[in-house]
Amino acid sequence: MPATIKINEKDTVAIALRDLRKGEKVEGDVILLEDIPQAHKIALCDREKGAPVIRYGVVLGFLTQPIRKGEWINEHKMAVAPSPDLASLVWGTDVHVRLPHPRRTTWRGYSVPGQRWAGSRNILAITSTVQCCQGVVDAAVRKMKEELLAKYPHVDDIVALNHVYGCGIDVNAPGSEIPVRTIRNLMHNPNFGGQLFVVSLGCEHLRPDLLLSESENNPGNVIVLQKQHGFAGMLEAMMEMAEKKLAILESRRREELPLSRLLVGFQCGGSDAFSGIAANPAAGYASDLLVSEGAGSMFSEVTEVRDGADKLAARCIDEATFRKLVHELDWYDKYLARGGMDRDGNPTPGNKAGGLSNIVEKAMGSIAKSGSAPIVDVLASGERATKGGLMFAATSANDVICGPSQLASGMALEVFMTGRGTPYGLAEAPVIKVSTRYELKEMWPDLIDIDAGYVETGEKTIQEVGEELFNLILDVASGEKPKVEQLGLSNYICLLNPAPLE
Amino acid sequence: MPATIKINEKDTVAIALRDLRKGEKVEGDVILLEDIPQAHKIALCDREKGAPVIRYGVVLGFLTQPIRKGEWINEHKMAVAPSPDLASLVWGTDVHVRLPHPRRTTWRGYSVPGQRWAGSRNILAITSTVQCCQGVVDAAVRKMKEELLAKYPHVDDIVALNHVYGCGIDVNAPGSEIPVRTIRNLMHNPNFGGQLFVVSLGCEHLRPDLLLSESENNPGNVIVLQKQHGFAGMLEAMMEMAEKKLAILESRRREELPLSRLLVGFQCGGSDAFSGIAANPAAGYASDLLVSEGAGSMFSEVTEVRDGADKLAARCIDEATFRKLVHELDWYDKYLARGGMDRDGNPTPGNKAGGLSNIVEKAMGSIAKSGSAPIVDVLASGERATKGGLMFAATSANDVICGPSQLASGMALEVFMTGRGTPYGLAEAPVIKVSTRYELKEMWPDLIDIDAGYVETGEKTIQEVGEELFNLILDVASGEKPKVEQLGLSNYICLLNPAPLE
Repeated sequence: MPATIKINEKDTVAIALRDLRKGEKVEGDVILLEDIPQAHKIALCDREKGAPVIRYGVVLGFLTQPIRKGEWINEHKMAVAPSPDLASLVWGTDVHVRLPHPRRTTWRGYSVPGQRWAGSRNILAITSTVQCCQGVVDAAVRKMKEELLAKYPHVDDIVALNHVYGCGIDVNAPGSEIPVRTIRNLMHNPNFGGQLFVVSLGCEHLRPDLLLSESENNPGNVIVLQKQHGFAGMLEAMMEMAEKKLAILESRRREELPLSRLLVGFQCGGSDAFSGIAANPAAGYASDLLVSEGAGSMFSEVTEVRDGADKLAARCIDEATFRKLVHELDWYDKYLARGGMDRDGNPTPGNKAGGLSNIVEKAMGSIAKSGSAPIVDVLASGERATKGGLMFAATSANDVICGPSQLASGMALEVFMTGRGTPYGLAEAPVIKVSTRYELKEMWPDLIDIDAGYVETGEKTIQEVGEELFNLILDVASGEKPKVEQLGLSNYICLLNPAPLE
Repeated sequence: MPATIKINEKDTVAIALRDLRKGEKVEGDVILLEDIPQAHKIALCDREKGAPVIRYGVVLGFLTQPIRKGEWINEHKMAVAPSPDLASLVWGTDVHVRLPHPRRTTWRGYSVPGQRWAGSRNILAITSTVQCCQGVVDAAVRKMKEELLAKYPHVDDIVALNHVYGCGIDVNAPGSEIPVRTIRNLMHNPNFGGQLFVVSLGCEHLRPDLLLSESENNPGNVIVLQKQHGFAGMLEAMMEMAEKKLAILESRRREELPLSRLLVGFQCGGSDAFSGIAANPAAGYASDLLVSEGAGSMFSEVTEVRDGADKLAARCIDEATFRKLVHELDWYDKYLARGGMDRDGNPTPGNKAGGLSNIVEKAMGSIAKSGSAPIVDVLASGERATKGGLMFAATSANDVICGPSQLASGMALEVFMTGRGTPYGLAEAPVIKVSTRYELKEMWPDLIDIDAGYVETGEKTIQEVGEELFNLILDVASGEKPKVEQLGLSNYICLLNPAPLE
């Protein structure tokens, strides 16, 4: 197993594949001048103050002090490079790629009448219009699971689509279209089989007619709590509607479908410097395999790709897509600036301990999960995806916002790469967990599905891990349960609401 | 039963106590020119366009059209009056009041060593530092309730203090002190007996040392998930810590305590025009009874008192309290303005259907819950209360933010007034529900504890309902379970985070 890895020939740094000791010799003739922790950067040459630090062939930042060959380079020794200027981006310069072809070209999913995307699960989902309903909806879901679910063996689960939006807000405030669109689209996720079940309080700002079309907004789909006789009446009405919807869902069956009916979301969280070497490139390869057969593949997390905006622009397939990209990145820039946010505040203490010195380095690793396919569409947060191919879904990088946004876009399952480790999961769709390091898989054997750490040790190639992941994606989409689904771990739905709360 | 009620002799409107028909004669010689729905306003005299509409002796707004005596006045016929200018407020002009004295002066609560406030419940609370831990904490709490709780009969419950803050945020962004302070203080609520139990992921922005003092931040109180061997190891560590904490909590006993050891929070939600006539004034009377014996009493909801800022200023007991009041109101004004919010966007469709035409009218009803005591302190959102007496806790008016903020301030129980009806509840403290209308209590008999509708019908006085509520507060604080606690209904903890999400 090699001690270090250098990713691009222009790089001025290499990455330690394990904890290295002062005096060790790496990359031919580099003698370490100090101990270097796993995943951290080693200077490959003497450089003066102000010189660029290059990784992935990209300038991460500029040295704030002179550095000698063999020294440890971290966030204390460099200043972050500026973000690419949105006004000077060029689109379409990197769209002619040859994608690898997969051996498997079908999966077994649940079709939904009138929808392009098929589901990977058969779930009854109950949407709250407003936070006030959440306690009642949770109580009703517990009762339904205890008393009804077993009677419908073809239904996988009953979930509450709860959130803390809906009142104490102004539905007309700038930015409120994001949470409203997300709630509206969430209930149409293909895993819910096209069945609508909405619980309204009756006096909220976010009324059912703001979420449902005229033909959908009727007593067959909507229960208003203020019209029920007490909690007992609420429960009764919800149990009754649940039985009707469950009976319909019960008749759903999986069928052999082409990959063009599958939409997969990719996300990473708790990243480290290996994320961009192993797990994310492997995910990118899996994404390429999906896309080459017409599947939809989404990557996300605006603040974690912003510093690679030039690379995304180059991959936009047409001007309309490019314009949407710039619009979304620009909106987020302004949103953060309005709140006085430091863009380089994104990397967490854990990211930094994991060798990610700044947001540029994090972004380069993050983008790796998009593979090499052209970007055929850019989606606003929570917007429904309509095209096959690689899409950038412009969501928050916050894990618990990104997941629900991708669900609203229509994903049947999510792939989640992690370096430091997070137990994140969703109740609404299966989540496959990929570790970037062998140590994490060892530490969390019951949470990690696939270990990309074999790439660092040289035991497997990126393509091999990517193909393994691709196969697992199809297996899970077809019904196999990944680890966090087996354990029943799931996170709350969190919505990006840029507007103030009253 | 009278058909209408006029609150202040200066008022130009009366309120319909039931649905009234065109042609009925009310308030002596006023003949209704149209049907008037229950809780709505009736013009008591002919007035020209631009004339003020007065209720509670306060200008709600100005007529946008001429009005005839007997006409219905609603939000379509008047423009909202401007908010009081913060720079011209005068403090201390209304602080010399005689408070009523209660017959009961003790309750039975749980003391917490070193704390002024005592608890009304004996609960093990588990705090997540970050949203990533929530799925694991929820799973662990389910297991603890199934396997451990019955072994500790003196412990009432085990609750997860989950939230969606902690990462994907910048802990140094302006305004982030609000969610951080709230999480920090929440775990010290007296209902949790001083036992700390914190679950950290290990790589989050909001590290345990930002929430705990040096002496608190140790393995006896903190579990780091990334250091555990898988989900099984996480559960094992949490079960082990739970047994230790539960054993300590098990030895707590209620004791006879003076009211000065009790802190009560008041909140209203789903309000209507009766809120300010019946439930809120009765709550205010109960608050006066509490305060006269040295209890702490908090009212809240900045946007719903903002239009009565002059009345609050007049009741501030000293300049320091007044300055804090102005500071908090000014901060919220700017927060809303930054987000392009319309202050009169607050009243919901339900509020308006319930006769509350605008934010001024809503505020006057909202302030009624503060009774007549002087304001001895103003708390920032989630700040710990330290004084006995009436305090304004400057929280969001969003129900699910206000409740957790008041919990962080140290309340043992909450009183919640509602007109339209909401099933709101908290797992962390009992919530007493008071209806403003007889019809709501009839509709929701299993959710409403006390009906203030008897005030409208003339069957009871405000003082009588207030005393009934005061007695119930002491009973519930001493262990009696109100309706939503019996049903196990509770809402998520929501934090006000004014900063953007990454």
